[in-house]
Amino acid sequence: MKILIIGGKGTIGKRVSEHFAKKHQVIVGGRSTGDVIVDIADSKSIEAMFKAVGKVDAVVCIAGEAKWAAFDSMTEEDFTIGLKSKLMGQVNLVRIGQDYVNPGGSFTLTTGILADHPVEFTTSAAMVNGGIHSFVKAVALELRNGIRINVVSSGLVEDAVERYEAYFPGHNPIPMYKVINGYVRSVEGKGTGEIIRMYDNC
Amino acid sequence: MKILIIGGKGTIGKRVSEHFAKKHQVIVGGRSTGDVIVDIADSKSIEAMFKAVGKVDAVVCIAGEAKWAAFDSMTEEDFTIGLKSKLMGQVNLVRIGQDYVNPGGSFTLTTGILADHPVEFTTSAAMVNGGIHSFVKAVALELRNGIRINVVSSGLVEDAVERYEAYFPGHNPIPMYKVINGYVRSVEGKGTGEIIRMYDNC
Repeated sequence: MKILIIGGKGTIGKRVSEHFAKKHQVIVGGRSTGDVIVDIADSKSIEAMFKAVGKVDAVVCIAGEAKWAAFDSMTEEDFTIGLKSKLMGQVNLVRIGQDYVNPGGSFTLTTGILADHPVEFTTSAAMVNGGIHSFVKAVALELRNGIRINVVSSGLVEDAVERYEAYFPGHNPIPMYKVINGYVRSVEGKGTGEIIRMYDNC
Repeated sequence: MKILIIGGKGTIGKRVSEHFAKKHQVIVGGRSTGDVIVDIADSKSIEAMFKAVGKVDAVVCIAGEAKWAAFDSMTEEDFTIGLKSKLMGQVNLVRIGQDYVNPGGSFTLTTGILADHPVEFTTSAAMVNGGIHSFVKAVALELRNGIRINVVSSGLVEDAVERYEAYFPGHNPIPMYKVINGYVRSVEGKGTGEIIRMYDNC
């Protein structure tokens, strides 16, 4: 398969890219580094990326940001960051990318546990994650040519524990091999419209 | 209680307003009619509304729109309608309104079954509903002075069956008294961070 992985140099992205590269042709997209440069917050940049890369069998997005801050300090503008990047960035990737994915191919988006189990300071991040979950269920009803779409929503991943554990009291870190498996299940499986939750609440 | 009901003249809103008016002081906000005029897509209009109405015990929002259309016909601009109105409109209502709700008061937002069970043409509507669900869970962790927040998510309501049933094949209509009870549970109950699902999937 020819797989385009946007955010393929990030914390999760580099592990996922390394894994898929063992069996597939991987093209890494990134904002500052990668095989192709793309800023998903800018739909013109997404268009240019697809024109450069051409047809693919799978698009994986592990990119997008949102502002973390106390709700009573958040301005309307602060919310716009997440709306433009992690929310509409991923929506536009599907909207524009549907013409560049081969029949039977797939999209895999990324959210996170905040959609279901938010923590302090995440009103914007939780919101965009929840929006993507419902978007994926809805758009799966409409994509053509057998194109599938799923979203991987992980808990606090092991490789990010050092940086983020203070924000996630009592959250069990998710081993990277399980996170990778979420993406494998979406790309190599047959499911569509799935929210692949990689949480460890037991 | 002094209850501000935005969208209090709409299909659901008029039933909810009538019900609460039996026991409480109800102020109806609307885009073109009501005790106070407000367009939730414009945060300046929200500010002006709260300045005019003053402190309240409960804010209920049954307003907000999003574009319904086939995904492959949706432009980026089409998505903006829902982002500005039903999504950020409700977020801004809480963001600005938190200073106008009395201690122990509440916010009640409105979404719909599309967040969990979308139908065709609802990529944008489902997305904004799902975003609000996660937002409510997240912001409930941060509101002060015992202010609560919940969201009522109804299935196809009985009073809208005639207009919308073609879009919801096989959906069981929800009786209006059950929909009203969703809002009563939020406003007069003690829960917070709840997604009050009024679905009938049995």
